[in-house]
Amino acid sequence: MASPLFQTPTNPVLPGDDFKSWHTALGGELTKVPDDSWKTVLKEKHPEMLHLLQFPYNGEPPKRLVTDKAITPNSLHFVRNHGGTPLIDEKKFELQLDGLVKSPKTYTMKDLMNKSVFPQMEKTITMQCSGTRRIEQISMYAGQGDEVPQAPWAEGAIGTARYKGISLKKLIKDCGGLVSNAKHLEFYGVDTYVKDLNVGNYVVSVPWSKVKSNEVILAWEMNGEPLPKIHGFPLRVIVMGYIGARSVKWLYRIKAIKSPSLAPVQSREYLYFNQQMGKYNQRPMDRLQIQEMPVSSAIMSPWQNQVIMHGGKILCKGWAYSGGGRWPERVELSADGGFSWYDVPEENLSKKGKWAWRSWEIDLPCDVEGWIEIVCRCWDNSLNTQPLNVRAAWNWGLHVTSSAHRIKIYSVNKTHKLTQQKLAQFKEHDIPLAPLTRYDPVPGITDREIAKYQDSHPRDVDE
Amino acid sequence: MASPLFQTPTNPVLPGDDFKSWHTALGGELTKVPDDSWKTVLKEKHPEMLHLLQFPYNGEPPKRLVTDKAITPNSLHFVRNHGGTPLIDEKKFELQLDGLVKSPKTYTMKDLMNKSVFPQMEKTITMQCSGTRRIEQISMYAGQGDEVPQAPWAEGAIGTARYKGISLKKLIKDCGGLVSNAKHLEFYGVDTYVKDLNVGNYVVSVPWSKVKSNEVILAWEMNGEPLPKIHGFPLRVIVMGYIGARSVKWLYRIKAIKSPSLAPVQSREYLYFNQQMGKYNQRPMDRLQIQEMPVSSAIMSPWQNQVIMHGGKILCKGWAYSGGGRWPERVELSADGGFSWYDVPEENLSKKGKWAWRSWEIDLPCDVEGWIEIVCRCWDNSLNTQPLNVRAAWNWGLHVTSSAHRIKIYSVNKTHKLTQQKLAQFKEHDIPLAPLTRYDPVPGITDREIAKYQDSHPRDVDE
Repeated sequence: MASPLFQTPTNPVLPGDDFKSWHTALGGELTKVPDDSWKTVLKEKHPEMLHLLQFPYNGEPPKRLVTDKAITPNSLHFVRNHGGTPLIDEKKFELQLDGLVKSPKTYTMKDLMNKSVFPQMEKTITMQCSGTRRIEQISMYAGQGDEVPQAPWAEGAIGTARYKGISLKKLIKDCGGLVSNAKHLEFYGVDTYVKDLNVGNYVVSVPWSKVKSNEVILAWEMNGEPLPKIHGFPLRVIVMGYIGARSVKWLYRIKAIKSPSLAPVQSREYLYFNQQMGKYNQRPMDRLQIQEMPVSSAIMSPWQNQVIMHGGKILCKGWAYSGGGRWPERVELSADGGFSWYDVPEENLSKKGKWAWRSWEIDLPCDVEGWIEIVCRCWDNSLNTQPLNVRAAWNWGLHVTSSAHRIKIYSVNKTHKLTQQKLAQFKEHDIPLAPLTRYDPVPGITDREIAKYQDSHPRDVDE
Repeated sequence: MASPLFQTPTNPVLPGDDFKSWHTALGGELTKVPDDSWKTVLKEKHPEMLHLLQFPYNGEPPKRLVTDKAITPNSLHFVRNHGGTPLIDEKKFELQLDGLVKSPKTYTMKDLMNKSVFPQMEKTITMQCSGTRRIEQISMYAGQGDEVPQAPWAEGAIGTARYKGISLKKLIKDCGGLVSNAKHLEFYGVDTYVKDLNVGNYVVSVPWSKVKSNEVILAWEMNGEPLPKIHGFPLRVIVMGYIGARSVKWLYRIKAIKSPSLAPVQSREYLYFNQQMGKYNQRPMDRLQIQEMPVSSAIMSPWQNQVIMHGGKILCKGWAYSGGGRWPERVELSADGGFSWYDVPEENLSKKGKWAWRSWEIDLPCDVEGWIEIVCRCWDNSLNTQPLNVRAAWNWGLHVTSSAHRIKIYSVNKTHKLTQQKLAQFKEHDIPLAPLTRYDPVPGITDREIAKYQDSHPRDVDE
């Protein structure tokens, strides 16, 4: 299926051949979508993005760039698309608002941007995919996601941006308000969505209570720029404090309804099952629909399997976040697998905000050498904290990996005398340190020294 | 370096190219050794052996054959060689006994087999490599063993055979006994041993106390047959209850000495370091020399990552062993990761013996479905038991993985109603069960059913 376009020097982990071929099979305008979408990635996204799934496009920034800035640059913001990236002509664009509202209406972008009708709002909002850190679940146990690709996200499926737009509440009012006891708003995206080999649009809903609280924005600006095509140009939903899946991109219709959407994204996906619920015993109703994400955190530096030379303290950096308008109050790190915990000093946490993550750093005390496990956990303002192990929250859909983040690193404490001597020998013989597991070529202890030691420390006891 | 001989349809995990090229570089008789050794493997070992390292040859039987019989057939007994397999002419063979004995002597095989001089002995003995189950340590943390291959053993680097020969004690007596306070016996094998790019023979020692107790056999027969070439023909040492590394094959010299051998196998390898002792801070004296293996056990069925359909009980099989003449008294299994433990009924354990393993089986109760962890541990007659996690005993040399054996399996309990229904649907639609992670194509619950459920179980609460 691969067209020449896809032969670029990039690194998609999964190509998404099934999705590409379904679009080709559907024909018509959809034929070009896989190519167009990838072109958009190459144009709009940072060259260092990690491409997890080529089509539909899923990508996250590399670790060192995730929390580099408190506001994520647009080119580095993660992307979790479910279909192709529609290329929409803003001038021809119309948003339809119908269903259980008094006066259904249609709006152009110009209508929506008319400040005299709709007051504008701007908010700094962290968006998180419920698949963030899924790689930790995958590496522990297989789950759904072999033939229907579930992107193997690391810690970068989270990003923070400043969005500008209008509150959806104002638009509902402009249509005369809800009627007939409507309780949910259903959002329709232009992008295709394939489920059980049925094709539709990307559709989800949120409760009216969320809209009424002015926590749902219809946004056209991201970090002071028009929305990038890949992020929903010309108009998208931003649901504050909910998972990214509810923030529909390329929004073209809003429908007021009585019950939550039955569209597959809402009713059959983004479900959080019990740990023992699996392929042969699961039903869509035995689930929590994922809306707000629980408190979570991640270590962005150092990285898994790194060899860290230090003088008794290891510099660690990362992020912490809690969904639903809660925020990180305390971040703690452990260098001994979760036995002792050090507080990140308040001055090392970035500023707090109702809808945003906090980045942090700490000089974590560590005496021992060898393989250690650094663990990170967060407590939010409601004193929620994270489960300590991936197993505790593993689930068939591989969603919501919110357990304490654990990384293995190899600690080399330069203040230890034997280590100092060995490193000096390496330097003296001009021997590179890497790789760790390579045979150690430094001239070692002599047979005479071993013999002398053995004479005074016999291996076996006398009778 | 690969000669055409090596292009056979077998599966060595590591080829051992460095070792092959060192032999070629040394030249002379050694040039042919890699080829000869592999020919011997193909001739003497079972076609289903798992070849971990082609040269020097390291191989173990596949899981289902490890404990298939209480006595391991010669062709299936694991092999941990450190150099090539010497091809020795029995008629020209001589064993030299010298060092601190009153009258050094030389023996032919005929001399040693002379019943009127040396009474013969026969014993059932389990031999275990200290690298058994190393794969569990490797998969957790890297250690020594990247460029100097450490074979990635699973649970099969253990085997039990009946050996026939004479007690080394009688031979020492025949030489007039030890003199000058000698306390150790050093064994020389014909096979080459390479360490730090120095080449020598394979040499180790055991204490006189072990020999004096008649626990060291010079053996020429294995399970009623002459020793296979690959297992040391014509003569090898069998040290009861010690790691295999002390049971030198192709024995040609025994030397009585005062202190433990300074040969590298003894003084620089098979050392057991503290968990935090690593590349930059280890010294050969900061170790335990490994002689007796601690109590251990392994699950040979089911296998890691298997999907097991059962009716509430899972049939498990395996082995248990303890070194130094201790033996398994109790074997326990857990289906919940080590929280609750079931006893293997005494009648399901094979007969006990001072130097031998015991095989076992149990119908392990398990109600839950999904990914579970089956764990096995043993208590020996001294009430020693196993640490519960690999981490507890991880070490740089990746030796002695004696922690409780843990395997992940996917449990499908056919007595559960939902599961019964789903399996019946699979059957009805003629859909194969495998693979587990494949998209489930069975027609599922309808939108109408979901809607009905949602009406009576709203996702969000009213204000």
